Amino acid sequence: MSVPLPSSAPAIPDLARELFNELRSGSFDGVGVTRASYGESESRALSLLAKKALREQLLAASDRAGNLVISLEGEDARQPAITCGSHVDSVPEGGNYDGAAGVVAGLLALVHLRRLGIVPPRSLKVLALRGEESAWFGQAYLGSKALFGKLSESDLALPQRETGKPLSHYMQVAGADLEAITAGEVLLNPAEIGCYLELHIEQGPVMVARNLNLGVVTGIRGNHRHAVVTCSGEAAHSGAVPRWLRRDAVFAVSEFIMRLDRHWQALLEQGHDLVVTVGILNTNSNEHAMSRVPGEVTFALEYRSESSELLADFEALARSEAEGIERLRGVSFNISESLVTAPATMTPCLIELFDDVCDELTATHERIPSGAGHDAAVFANHGVPTGMLFVRNEDGSHNPYEKMDMEDFLHGVDALMLALLRAPEVLK
Amino acid sequence: MSVPLPSSAPAIPDLARELFNELRSGSFDGVGVTRASYGESESRALSLLAKKALREQLLAASDRAGNLVISLEGEDARQPAITCGSHVDSVPEGGNYDGAAGVVAGLLALVHLRRLGIVPPRSLKVLALRGEESAWFGQAYLGSKALFGKLSESDLALPQRETGKPLSHYMQVAGADLEAITAGEVLLNPAEIGCYLELHIEQGPVMVARNLNLGVVTGIRGNHRHAVVTCSGEAAHSGAVPRWLRRDAVFAVSEFIMRLDRHWQALLEQGHDLVVTVGILNTNSNEHAMSRVPGEVTFALEYRSESSELLADFEALARSEAEGIERLRGVSFNISESLVTAPATMTPCLIELFDDVCDELTATHERIPSGAGHDAAVFANHGVPTGMLFVRNEDGSHNPYEKMDMEDFLHGVDALMLALLRAPEVLK
Repeated sequence: MSVPLPSSAPAIPDLARELFNELRSGSFDGVGVTRASYGESESRALSLLAKKALREQLLAASDRAGNLVISLEGEDARQPAITCGSHVDSVPEGGNYDGAAGVVAGLLALVHLRRLGIVPPRSLKVLALRGEESAWFGQAYLGSKALFGKLSESDLALPQRETGKPLSHYMQVAGADLEAITAGEVLLNPAEIGCYLELHIEQGPVMVARNLNLGVVTGIRGNHRHAVVTCSGEAAHSGAVPRWLRRDAVFAVSEFIMRLDRHWQALLEQGHDLVVTVGILNTNSNEHAMSRVPGEVTFALEYRSESSELLADFEALARSEAEGIERLRGVSFNISESLVTAPATMTPCLIELFDDVCDELTATHERIPSGAGHDAAVFANHGVPTGMLFVRNEDGSHNPYEKMDMEDFLHGVDALMLALLRAPEVLK
Repeated sequence: MSVPLPSSAPAIPDLARELFNELRSGSFDGVGVTRASYGESESRALSLLAKKALREQLLAASDRAGNLVISLEGEDARQPAITCGSHVDSVPEGGNYDGAAGVVAGLLALVHLRRLGIVPPRSLKVLALRGEESAWFGQAYLGSKALFGKLSESDLALPQRETGKPLSHYMQVAGADLEAITAGEVLLNPAEIGCYLELHIEQGPVMVARNLNLGVVTGIRGNHRHAVVTCSGEAAHSGAVPRWLRRDAVFAVSEFIMRLDRHWQALLEQGHDLVVTVGILNTNSNEHAMSRVPGEVTFALEYRSESSELLADFEALARSEAEGIERLRGVSFNISESLVTAPATMTPCLIELFDDVCDELTATHERIPSGAGHDAAVFANHGVPTGMLFVRNEDGSHNPYEKMDMEDFLHGVDALMLALLRAPEVLK
């Protein structure tokens, strides 16, 4: 798989480093990297990638949502293209790999094939998507949603966190077809693409803990969120009220959490996918004191799973446990309606394809659910066959400390390249 | 037990109402009553009580700590006096009965005996104490501690909550012997008093729930307080970190509280006295979020019991449970040193005496621990035989909504009067 390089062109590993370095220096903010969704810094990153693609004799053009599309033409250009990609924007003071790694990987895969002179069976496209991070407009997946005509008027009016100017303003400046987007026009017909593959760094610690180069994503967890759950009991003198007369909100909430914990453990043992989080929990600061039985606790409750059914079942379970505790402990729970984000399932034949190519490359790998959301979920939920590959990464993402090993990444590039070539076979 | 009254004098129940009404109107603040420790409003209440006592041909004088002492001379005035009392101060916007009920009850008992022409075996004294509430100087039991020479220089320098002027200033204005108090002189030799009896409204809901007129206090709960307990885990992405890799501070603290709850329940079933309170509990607002595994929780922990041994055992239990959870859940607990307040035990023969007189009066009554602190604890912990009687009261104390039924109170006055008369027999 090696050919003589043009004298000026760096080898793939060197090109990888060069791309990441130039992306970083083009968006360094003094702490981490900042590439604002549909902002100037994001556009600068896309220009850099387009320039590199053209230098390697690939095609590069914007789509009608302002995303960059890099292409390598295939034998049968009339067949739906095989696509891959990820996003180029970042959170403020974020890391250089969250998003960009998937775009760089796609570009490197096409470069490698181009240099090898391989003409793929179908055209290959890398989508360098804009606006995946919700940090800028409070909404995620802007670039991919725009492609499927799924940005509402209220989405387009969302103010940018720093300037307050609406998303529509930034999309127009970035060259998107705002009229079509506002009209909800479908800019990318799902039938026109054979599949969408996304490489992304892992944002959790599982692969480091299990010593895996690569992870084959089985699905992207959906979630139910209850922004405010209130447990009301009765505030009282801590010395003067015995146990049997207490209506203690802290003990009630602790019992609630421990009951959820037992269900969680049991569901995992039964093979279900689930994470449960109470990220915020507070006694009422207007009345709490060391010597006062706490009368009110508020908390946030979120649970995520690859399965919609499990999420619905878990919500019913949580509500029923709260009722049981109400009777036992003389409190009342007010659980706000859940905000539901649907899970996305990866396409079985693409999961198997990634398993196979990882085996061939002798990269250590396992199947793993994605806890964070990705553009891949938007493609999957619009009927596009979709697969995802995780690359090992330490210290999470959305921070400048993310640590991706270049060796793991190059395994990922190879796996992606092989999957792009073979996808037409497994999709048949 | 009835004698013709002087034509101008109201009957005991009317006198009770008159006293409470005049105390209230002398200290009404628009919301509740405010009688500041060693303040003008407290002095006004003492003057009122002294005037009423003198009108009933009782003796009334200040002691060297500025407290009011109302006396009825007994057959053998050389024997240690039998004393009763409570405090006259209140919290800001407090209730009229917390404290004052015990002083009024003592005064009414002496009035009744005086009117009946009964000369008690020993002299009887009512101590109308100052400065019991910690609300004003951040320290409780100032009037009784001063009597036993237990106010330190730093206590005397404590600033009043509204004016910032030191306690010493207020004590001097109130006529206390500041020189002797500063020198730590014992102003009241414990050997000079036969016993101290205190009637007080219940500050909890037990007697209402159990339909009791009176409660015979077995002891005053001491407590261990940990102002800040910190549980540190690791903040992380709620979607990307599975259960087995989490170090979730909220789940860890919930488990800690539930383990304490099980011990608490078991200890009660074994007949021990205990209440446990986590009055304040918060995730770290600098980093918490709905979609973040919580990395830090802080909370306050307090437990109270009549038994010092149980408190020490419970602290050891709590520390050991925290260690167990540290290993299980990958967190670390930092439990601050406990601030210890010793319990006070009521004198067994006085507990029995109160039981007996309640039986004779056919008042419904049970033994009950006091969860809140009282001057009685200071007397008991200085070797004075001490007894306490609770009067049923609804809606707690330290608020204007406290509800004491006058019938219950008059039962209490009768019980106190009988106990004052008979105490010399049981103390022998």
